[in-house]
Amino acid sequence: MTTKTAPQPSATLVNGFDTQAIGQIVGALSNDRTLAKFQFRASNQWVGGGENHSSVQGFYGAGAEDRSRRQPFTLVNDEPPLLLGNNEGPNPGEYVLHALAGCVTTTTVMHAAARGIHVKSVSTELSGDIDLQGLLDLDPSVAPGYQQITVKMDIEADCTDEALDELLEFVYRHSPVCDTLCRPVPVTIERVRRS
Amino acid sequence: MTTKTAPQPSATLVNGFDTQAIGQIVGALSNDRTLAKFQFRASNQWVGGGENHSSVQGFYGAGAEDRSRRQPFTLVNDEPPLLLGNNEGPNPGEYVLHALAGCVTTTTVMHAAARGIHVKSVSTELSGDIDLQGLLDLDPSVAPGYQQITVKMDIEADCTDEALDELLEFVYRHSPVCDTLCRPVPVTIERVRRS
Repeated sequence: MTTKTAPQPSATLVNGFDTQAIGQIVGALSNDRTLAKFQFRASNQWVGGGENHSSVQGFYGAGAEDRSRRQPFTLVNDEPPLLLGNNEGPNPGEYVLHALAGCVTTTTVMHAAARGIHVKSVSTELSGDIDLQGLLDLDPSVAPGYQQITVKMDIEADCTDEALDELLEFVYRHSPVCDTLCRPVPVTIERVRRS
Repeated sequence: MTTKTAPQPSATLVNGFDTQAIGQIVGALSNDRTLAKFQFRASNQWVGGGENHSSVQGFYGAGAEDRSRRQPFTLVNDEPPLLLGNNEGPNPGEYVLHALAGCVTTTTVMHAAARGIHVKSVSTELSGDIDLQGLLDLDPSVAPGYQQITVKMDIEADCTDEALDELLEFVYRHSPVCDTLCRPVPVTIERVRRS
């Protein structure tokens, strides 16, 4: 978390992160573990067919509501014509891949910064295999979701290949979205009436 | 999948879906189960710090590469200042909630259409709890990803509450993104060198 302290002359940017700020976050959380509890949120409205829009703005973290976003982000889900949509946006399965790509990338460059590894570039290619027999209830033995997801990462940095491989193994175990996909997460769907 | 047949005069739009087209998809997949195999994709480029951009365009499905998107969709991940970013976009964890909202909504209105339930409105509120001690490697007993995700859905339709509850129970078990989160999905991160 950022603090209200003015930047120190000795502050060092590595991979776009202020490594002093990373150290301050780790120090603050070590002193008060409740600051690490975050809650992210989205609200979504159906438009019609496969199109729906989400609004993302506030979240809770570091012991308070965050107010840094003056306007909400609007995100558009749709389906391609093959799946009866109009291509107004990517579909939800594609957004999962985008989320995973971003989380793996940020976890990589942040932990690289903490290790003093200067990253020059990161690009990833993701693919996810899915069998729509699950969604369409055609075969109860077919899972509706992704069967497997592959991330291919091209990364250039000022360290050995061994250090990169060790970093990526760490990232696999510590990326929040990677963990969310690899581990069964309890999801609850509850019907409510808005007042 | 859509076919090249002209729309039939008796085609009926329910919840924005052509129910004849849904029937044709189910019929085609029942005849050739390999048509149900899809592969979705995303490519991502690190910009700096917590910012990175994905490009989403092609996918494989129904036995062929889809070419329906003339331009790629560009999606922006960033982090809020509290997490050392500049709020250029939602963060990856928020995109996961958007993906889940969209998938649950589309699965609901599509299967409602197949059941002849006319949906008037759907809105959802999602929240996901996460403890950053996992990401920051402060406590190995804390999972890095979401501890739990809650979807609250307000839905209006021309059916009984019991029929809606039964539909949502079905959706919970058949939404691809919900299943992807609830079930452990194998994720592979592989380091490659682009030529």
